[in-house]
Amino acid sequence: MASVLSLKKTIYLGPFVHSQSLAELEICTQGAIGVDEKGTIAFVERDVTEAIAVAKHEGWESAELVRVQDNGFFFPGFIDTHIHASQYPNTGIFGKSTLLDWLNTYTFPLESSLHALSRARQVYSRVVSRTLSHGTTTAAYYATVHVASTNLLADICLAKGQRAFVGRVCMNTLSPDYYRDASVEDAVRDSRASIDYIRKIDPGAELVAPIITPRFAPSCTAECLSALGELHRETGVHCQTHISENKPEIALVKELFPERKSYADVYDAAGLLTPKMILAHAVHLTGDEVELIKERGAKISHCPASNTALTSGCARVRELIESGIAVGLGTDVSGGFSPSVLEMARQAIWVSRFVAMNDGDQAKLSTEEVLYLATRGGAKVVGLENKIGGFEVGMDWDAQMIGLGAVSESGEAASESEDPVDVWGWESWDDRVAKWVYNGDDRSTVAVWVKGRLVHQTSRYQR
Amino acid sequence: MASVLSLKKTIYLGPFVHSQSLAELEICTQGAIGVDEKGTIAFVERDVTEAIAVAKHEGWESAELVRVQDNGFFFPGFIDTHIHASQYPNTGIFGKSTLLDWLNTYTFPLESSLHALSRARQVYSRVVSRTLSHGTTTAAYYATVHVASTNLLADICLAKGQRAFVGRVCMNTLSPDYYRDASVEDAVRDSRASIDYIRKIDPGAELVAPIITPRFAPSCTAECLSALGELHRETGVHCQTHISENKPEIALVKELFPERKSYADVYDAAGLLTPKMILAHAVHLTGDEVELIKERGAKISHCPASNTALTSGCARVRELIESGIAVGLGTDVSGGFSPSVLEMARQAIWVSRFVAMNDGDQAKLSTEEVLYLATRGGAKVVGLENKIGGFEVGMDWDAQMIGLGAVSESGEAASESEDPVDVWGWESWDDRVAKWVYNGDDRSTVAVWVKGRLVHQTSRYQR
Repeated sequence: MASVLSLKKTIYLGPFVHSQSLAELEICTQGAIGVDEKGTIAFVERDVTEAIAVAKHEGWESAELVRVQDNGFFFPGFIDTHIHASQYPNTGIFGKSTLLDWLNTYTFPLESSLHALSRARQVYSRVVSRTLSHGTTTAAYYATVHVASTNLLADICLAKGQRAFVGRVCMNTLSPDYYRDASVEDAVRDSRASIDYIRKIDPGAELVAPIITPRFAPSCTAECLSALGELHRETGVHCQTHISENKPEIALVKELFPERKSYADVYDAAGLLTPKMILAHAVHLTGDEVELIKERGAKISHCPASNTALTSGCARVRELIESGIAVGLGTDVSGGFSPSVLEMARQAIWVSRFVAMNDGDQAKLSTEEVLYLATRGGAKVVGLENKIGGFEVGMDWDAQMIGLGAVSESGEAASESEDPVDVWGWESWDDRVAKWVYNGDDRSTVAVWVKGRLVHQTSRYQR
Repeated sequence: MASVLSLKKTIYLGPFVHSQSLAELEICTQGAIGVDEKGTIAFVERDVTEAIAVAKHEGWESAELVRVQDNGFFFPGFIDTHIHASQYPNTGIFGKSTLLDWLNTYTFPLESSLHALSRARQVYSRVVSRTLSHGTTTAAYYATVHVASTNLLADICLAKGQRAFVGRVCMNTLSPDYYRDASVEDAVRDSRASIDYIRKIDPGAELVAPIITPRFAPSCTAECLSALGELHRETGVHCQTHISENKPEIALVKELFPERKSYADVYDAAGLLTPKMILAHAVHLTGDEVELIKERGAKISHCPASNTALTSGCARVRELIESGIAVGLGTDVSGGFSPSVLEMARQAIWVSRFVAMNDGDQAKLSTEEVLYLATRGGAKVVGLENKIGGFEVGMDWDAQMIGLGAVSESGEAASESEDPVDVWGWESWDDRVAKWVYNGDDRSTVAVWVKGRLVHQTSRYQR
């Protein structure tokens, strides 16, 4: 963590954009954000010159200055509230499958192979580098059942500087012989071992925290779920799992837990439905389940790319939000085909439009709303809404610098950078943001910071 | 055209992939495709070494050799069967609008501004460069009502080497005062002027051809449509227009043409529904309209990104294909938010899955099928199925070299190229193609040829 401690006071100068509320983006065209040695935002100035911004703050005269480049702006880092780090090599491979056959064909063999630490190191190094390059400053990761490689993922996040929740996966039934927990005791013991390790390497959970991870109801017995609920109560550690992703899965849960009123009730009965629980998917929830989740304060990770690719269904995000449940976005790599939260923002727009085609226009999400889900919404889902997701004094500097391409008079790109976005010069700031959202990709994310530390930069970043 | 005539015989060596039928991709892992001085494919060898490929063909001993690089393969160039070149600067800007308000807010003001040739040159240069960089070797373009700038678009396509149909847009009613045809005579005269010009600059339509372009039924009177139908019959030139994109539009057509049985019948009555007509969208066609279009042999451009972004609806592509209508993909820039046909292939997958959620699994399109639509399907739509869309002897070499990234042992990217696709080494060829389709972008398109001429290359292309 030496690099974090040795930060210099820095003032980030230029336009910044962040969510003020679900429906509203603030676009500040002349900003100055001061970030202290601990990576915390000390001041946010609007509509000031550089000289005034510096002069206004005693002790900041010799601060480093980082200026926005390439027609761009600062934007909060993205929060991926649901990603299987261990499935990353399968990204883009899903074929004609749906959830349950996809698990057996593509997923379990790959996850199982991460038993080998050398392979885990390769995969986890890649997924952390890759998601950082897409501007993901915080991720809620599923690893595998293997303690050592799960712990290695936490080490890699810490070393590369990504904020993360790292979960050792529990699965003691309906799982392949070659890849499962042998018993409830094993599931709890190994979960505890991983929790202890991660708490040791980052005692204040400054960056990396453990997360209890029952895979989903079909792969855990009621006894196992209850034991994990007990571990959750004892340790206070976050939890994550899947819920109501597709219809055969829901039917299976009904069959496996005939004594429970609903899928959500399975988790509630085990003591897992609490404000620290992240539920991925939530595509086919009943009204009663929505009510129960809301009452318990559990959170939802909307995974639009995965739900579409696997034909799972369309989550009714507007209804979830209006019920008062906190919702964020998840890539669900590799059920989802992309590690990019920006792509998820687009996919959430598409899913909402398909819901609207059936249910009416009120279902549509706006560009502003999906950007909120990708940042402030995600921050609420992981319980860090006071620390990340926006640019406020006292929050950490988890941010990305967005750059956009420029078109020259001749119609050629103004630089050789092969930027995916064309800015012509006449666009409003709303238009620029829209062009980034709908045409941008990792090339647009020029540089990324977590807690003030520069954790990724493209070749075009000028320092 | 000097550069086309001065081509050298070239053998393209390495894996190639193309559609054999709607459902089947051929993946040839060791290919050798000979392309003659005219850009025509002279031979296609499978499973041969380089030495044997050369030795087998007399007169090819000193041919240039172009080898696939970066874990990649050759793939046919994409065919964009519906793109408004004049709307390109608005790509990604659509906000909360639907079709009819989108036209007035975003589209007409921009199109009108291309009256100025300097602005037209900037926009058209950019859109041709940009689409070439995404592997679009053929495009069916809408320009504007302006003859001179429409002709300039044809000049630019010819100069940059993109195969194109270039259409001067006709619109004599329900259009803004500042942007319309003053009369039917004007519409016909100006269409004819553009047809004559384009036939003059490329007499054999080797690359560039004119296309008669009534904008859509609401912006043309019955008299205007009939006059364009007559021009079509007289000149034999292709036609393109829009049909049945969203419900208010369909209601408007019903109101404007009360004597016609359907939207499709409006075009049929005008003599425009022929095998040379490209109909964009076709989202809400009735069974009778599908039957009529099939009988007349007209073609359909499926524009999934636009239909989703503007909440127009989901075209039932499986039904269209099974009825025997030729279907290709269109970006519909800028109703569509992306100039990439690869993105359209993905979007067609998503739309088909949303249809499947309502109508059942048979609606789902496979990866193989959307790649067919993007190449062979598009070739049929533009009437060039004997010339482009696949790798067959006698076809033109309209192709792209796809490159994929490699992951090193350490988990870092093997090169500095920031490739969007990670290949780990264990993937099957089917997996590689899937990774390209779902994670690839213009960075994956290392080089592009049209009729044997190299028309685009990225910095990683090694020659």
